[in-house]
Amino acid sequence: MRQAVLAATVELLSSQGLAGATVAAVARAAGVHETSVYRRWKTRENLILDALTTELDSALPIPDTGRVREDLLRFFTTLARLLGTAQGRALLRLSVERDDTLDDRRGPYWSDRLERAGVMVRRGVERGELAGDADPGLLIEAVSGPLFVRVLLSAAPLDEALVAGLVDLALDGARPRPGS
Amino acid sequence: MRQAVLAATVELLSSQGLAGATVAAVARAAGVHETSVYRRWKTRENLILDALTTELDSALPIPDTGRVREDLLRFFTTLARLLGTAQGRALLRLSVERDDTLDDRRGPYWSDRLERAGVMVRRGVERGELAGDADPGLLIEAVSGPLFVRVLLSAAPLDEALVAGLVDLALDGARPRPGS
Repeated sequence: MRQAVLAATVELLSSQGLAGATVAAVARAAGVHETSVYRRWKTRENLILDALTTELDSALPIPDTGRVREDLLRFFTTLARLLGTAQGRALLRLSVERDDTLDDRRGPYWSDRLERAGVMVRRGVERGELAGDADPGLLIEAVSGPLFVRVLLSAAPLDEALVAGLVDLALDGARPRPGS
Repeated sequence: MRQAVLAATVELLSSQGLAGATVAAVARAAGVHETSVYRRWKTRENLILDALTTELDSALPIPDTGRVREDLLRFFTTLARLLGTAQGRALLRLSVERDDTLDDRRGPYWSDRLERAGVMVRRGVERGELAGDADPGLLIEAVSGPLFVRVLLSAAPLDEALVAGLVDLALDGARPRPGS
């Protein structure tokens, strides 16, 4: 049942936006009783958050190409693309809203995802591509932070040039390169 | 009149929180008519936003010590401290809320501030401390983004170690240092 309800929620969010994803419409589309939805998710907001986070996780795999720059470029290009979609924006909006009807697992949701992404950095350290004291969480925050901020605050565009610029800055820094 | 009203607003926000900063209370504290406040700012939200942004600007000077790392450390340590206060959080909250009663100058507000801060990077380039192609806006975004995100999304702490870590990452990158 969970999969059917979450899939119906994502489908309704995509086709009709946030306003169209009512519990009644989701229950109808998934072929379940409205009361079953409320029993499991308590509120419409929790249902939408669960649907969006589940979808995001499957849409945002952590690559393992053997090169740290390539891994980071792929991961953050996908994240930027997802955050640029209506669903990505909706998820991020829900994440920063103060709302008593939402479980307090929004902060942990993002912290968990960013922590998981740190494995790309740790592999880079193991391969000697990165300094031994490179901080995985910090590097992931430095690249992802501006992407979140552009969606939430400045409405500036998210494009591949931005992602590449942020990844290269985090890898190489802004100091002059030796020999250049 | 503008200065008196903005000062009264900040004072009420500090002493009584967002709920205490009503237009009536502000007008009383500033010794002006309520209608004058509405004539100038239209809504309570606009008044609060104006007060907070004006205060933040005077509390966040752009240093010029002659060394780029020191400039960035001072600037972002101050920003992190301000974002950690109740007023800083209130300003950031107001900045991401969708609210039809607010002028649409919140995005531009932050973009303008970050653009101004880019002068620290440009001075570093002129002094040869940074590479000639260092991107001021990108570097400022890479350091400030995680600070905003921690306030808005993850509720993780903002401390001096975080600021120093982000500044050093943006300056030196995560690759192994030559000779180390």
